[in-house]
Amino acid sequence: MAEEAAVRAQAETVRRLKQDKADADEIAKEVAKLLEMKAQLGTDEGKHKFVLKTPKGTRDFGPKEMAIRERAFKAIISCFKRHGAEVIDTPVFELKETLTGKYGEDSKLIYDLKDQGGELLSLRYDLTVPFARYLAMNKITNIKRYHIAKVYRRDNPAMTRGRYREFYQCDFDIAGQFDPMIPDAECLKIVHEILSDLQLGDFVIKVNDRRILDGMFAVCGVPDSKFRTICSSVDKLDKVPWEEVRSEMVGEKGLSPEAADRIGEYVQLHGGLDLIEQLLQDPKLSQNKVAKEGLGDMKLLFEYLTLFGITGKISFDLSLARGLDYYTGVIFEAVLLQQDNEHLEEPLSVGSVAGGGRYDGLVGMFDAKGRKVPCVGVSIGIERIFSILEQRLEASEEKIRTTETQVLVASAQKKLLEERLKLISELWDAGIKAEMLYKKNPKLLNQLQYCEETGIPLVAIVGEQELKDGVVKLRIVATREEVNVRRESLVEEIRIRTSQC
Amino acid sequence: MAEEAAVRAQAETVRRLKQDKADADEIAKEVAKLLEMKAQLGTDEGKHKFVLKTPKGTRDFGPKEMAIRERAFKAIISCFKRHGAEVIDTPVFELKETLTGKYGEDSKLIYDLKDQGGELLSLRYDLTVPFARYLAMNKITNIKRYHIAKVYRRDNPAMTRGRYREFYQCDFDIAGQFDPMIPDAECLKIVHEILSDLQLGDFVIKVNDRRILDGMFAVCGVPDSKFRTICSSVDKLDKVPWEEVRSEMVGEKGLSPEAADRIGEYVQLHGGLDLIEQLLQDPKLSQNKVAKEGLGDMKLLFEYLTLFGITGKISFDLSLARGLDYYTGVIFEAVLLQQDNEHLEEPLSVGSVAGGGRYDGLVGMFDAKGRKVPCVGVSIGIERIFSILEQRLEASEEKIRTTETQVLVASAQKKLLEERLKLISELWDAGIKAEMLYKKNPKLLNQLQYCEETGIPLVAIVGEQELKDGVVKLRIVATREEVNVRRESLVEEIRIRTSQC
Repeated sequence: MAEEAAVRAQAETVRRLKQDKADADEIAKEVAKLLEMKAQLGTDEGKHKFVLKTPKGTRDFGPKEMAIRERAFKAIISCFKRHGAEVIDTPVFELKETLTGKYGEDSKLIYDLKDQGGELLSLRYDLTVPFARYLAMNKITNIKRYHIAKVYRRDNPAMTRGRYREFYQCDFDIAGQFDPMIPDAECLKIVHEILSDLQLGDFVIKVNDRRILDGMFAVCGVPDSKFRTICSSVDKLDKVPWEEVRSEMVGEKGLSPEAADRIGEYVQLHGGLDLIEQLLQDPKLSQNKVAKEGLGDMKLLFEYLTLFGITGKISFDLSLARGLDYYTGVIFEAVLLQQDNEHLEEPLSVGSVAGGGRYDGLVGMFDAKGRKVPCVGVSIGIERIFSILEQRLEASEEKIRTTETQVLVASAQKKLLEERLKLISELWDAGIKAEMLYKKNPKLLNQLQYCEETGIPLVAIVGEQELKDGVVKLRIVATREEVNVRRESLVEEIRIRTSQC
Repeated sequence: MAEEAAVRAQAETVRRLKQDKADADEIAKEVAKLLEMKAQLGTDEGKHKFVLKTPKGTRDFGPKEMAIRERAFKAIISCFKRHGAEVIDTPVFELKETLTGKYGEDSKLIYDLKDQGGELLSLRYDLTVPFARYLAMNKITNIKRYHIAKVYRRDNPAMTRGRYREFYQCDFDIAGQFDPMIPDAECLKIVHEILSDLQLGDFVIKVNDRRILDGMFAVCGVPDSKFRTICSSVDKLDKVPWEEVRSEMVGEKGLSPEAADRIGEYVQLHGGLDLIEQLLQDPKLSQNKVAKEGLGDMKLLFEYLTLFGITGKISFDLSLARGLDYYTGVIFEAVLLQQDNEHLEEPLSVGSVAGGGRYDGLVGMFDAKGRKVPCVGVSIGIERIFSILEQRLEASEEKIRTTETQVLVASAQKKLLEERLKLISELWDAGIKAEMLYKKNPKLLNQLQYCEETGIPLVAIVGEQELKDGVVKLRIVATREEVNVRRESLVEEIRIRTSQC
């Protein structure tokens, strides 16, 4: 007995050792793979050489890109403020558990921070979940806010088309219990205003409702359990043809061919109020409670959009599904329309530039008692817009200024550094935007050239004669005109010439 | 032989299995430790209960905090632009190796991202190292730029005093080969302008030079190898008395008591041009090459600051050391002076609100050929400034607005939602900032109350009679005055009343 036990124990030890060895091998394999990857990197960039780059999928914004970025932000922020929004900001990372279970399959794209002791953290994936966390944490049940900040996704970057791993989102959301479709209509108005204002070319805003989709799935014979996954298939219709989507539904997802074909008929439909009316009469859909609710609200939405005068750019589109799990009502997505634009080298394929919808359940997920705060919001896909604006600027002849300097303080002779410092200090203190070259004795030609290069419109030249006469020579760079201005009038003269008041 | 080989092989297998097991045990132990930590966390926070908070050391900015933040940013950005700066932005994370070896002991405070395959990344610790990386990567040898963004340090937070783990830095830097002290003087002028503009109370900007410190250490008999660590001790003088610093130098760092005492004499000195002159005559310091260089430049700096008219707030202070490794010349730090301010409940102890200096070697660390780009820059410690502004606002009676809405579109009777939607759409399209309540039939009283609460100055009231007459009733909230305005003049009237033009 004892011997048998000893043998068994020994066998068990061997078995465990083997298992441990298998585990260790697995780890060793992983390590080897990583080392290989590292070595490859090393070969690509030169061994032991320092790699001078930004992380994959990210980029720097230089002064020129920043000028474009700030121009776009200005248009967007002024629209958000026009609609009475407050602004908030949240940390770039959240507790890992705050993001858990909010993004479905996309959760694998979340950046986690290393566990360095303390809390487990993740970089935010969008601004909507942090917003919902903020509302629940502060027990806010009523707010209209915007938030412009960077979000992070470990996605495959396609940088030329404006797809990055670090990118800005510009979100506007309305939270609170209100009468139906009024805030939803305002979100669409906002998209319309921003896309018009930025002059990105013709666009269409597709609109649908999760309730209409769910009702449609039900009457087509999709089992409840397959709603979300079939919804994901429908979501691909903007990229792949129906036949492919159909075969995914039937082949991969096990939907009956009949159900798929019924869906196929619906998702081809798009239109306006007339389509809504038609579907409200649809013998099958009209029998489905949620679909009927969704269609009723869609009709109301279109009435409000008619009052806003923007239905020309709105398309009720049954193929619009949107990827995210948290939507519960209206959903929408704005796409730029392909144009035969002669001014652009090649046609731009940028796809969606804004999207959003209603998510009435998300805040409740953060509340201990599950109290809901209905929300609807829109997110502007600003990186794609940057891409378009950058390409357009490159194609145009426009020279973009990256500073706002009004005047360069220059000297005509040597040994006037002290005088330049005194004058520029006076100008700064008077609120004039002024620069000087950081040289003791710069050549006048170099100083004028600097103005040409950077677009500074005026030069204030100090010289020995001018100092004696109590004047400064003001040169207008564009016309090369020069006038003597009394020192005490200089600030005023610069203000007038650069038309500030 | 074959048998011996077999035995050896078997022994080798056993040895390896044991080693593998030891490795696996080590891993298992680590996992157990982590699980225990996780369990403890669970107990601390309540089991399976969701914790609704922002990560340690971070905070949300609500609309009120954002209003204060934007006010401070506006002052800072307008100063940076007044000095002709361009703006750049860099990713929130960098390759881990980009940050390696730049921060000395503080490197342990860097946030690393989890290794999820691909590159090893860290959150930026300041904006200076990413700036240097940007310059080297783009081979830029000449730029004046600002950068306002969040940086990350796993430090012990002290949030009431404005010390966070995620916090903003506002950096202005001048890179390029220039004549000495001209850009350095401009950085100090900028600090002076910003602190004056923000009206934070009296302040002093301490100035010193790493070369003067190094020379001082040399003539006091500090061995070369101890320069940096003794420098760190000196850096503590703003928080602890000399006696403590001295005992750290002698006790922990093994400096001779004589050397420490000699340092003690120097670091008590602070003053202006006269002190510089005195030290230039100092029998020991004047013999030291780097100290002499530093003192010569310090004299030049003071001459320029005299021309700028700001020496009144500048103190040449031999106790100023600054923590960071990368400084090579002038260093400075602005501190607010304690005031007996009756308006504030308790005296604020905020310490440093701005700092910076010259770092001529940092860019070269990123260049394959070590090419240097001399840089000098300033960083505004905006979080401490926020704290002061927030506390001041709380103490005052000022009611801060968090929106810019000019007019509320209201109705006096029921069933006028459509008319409100039409009017507000007209106003938005004309660029007027307008809101309405998202209710079908809101009470007039509630609409007026909303204006009182949010500070909206005007109400545009549509009623049946007004619609018939082609007018809108415009109510001035502050005075309760009401005037009928013809619909076609409404936009103009609102603009005049809210004094935009």
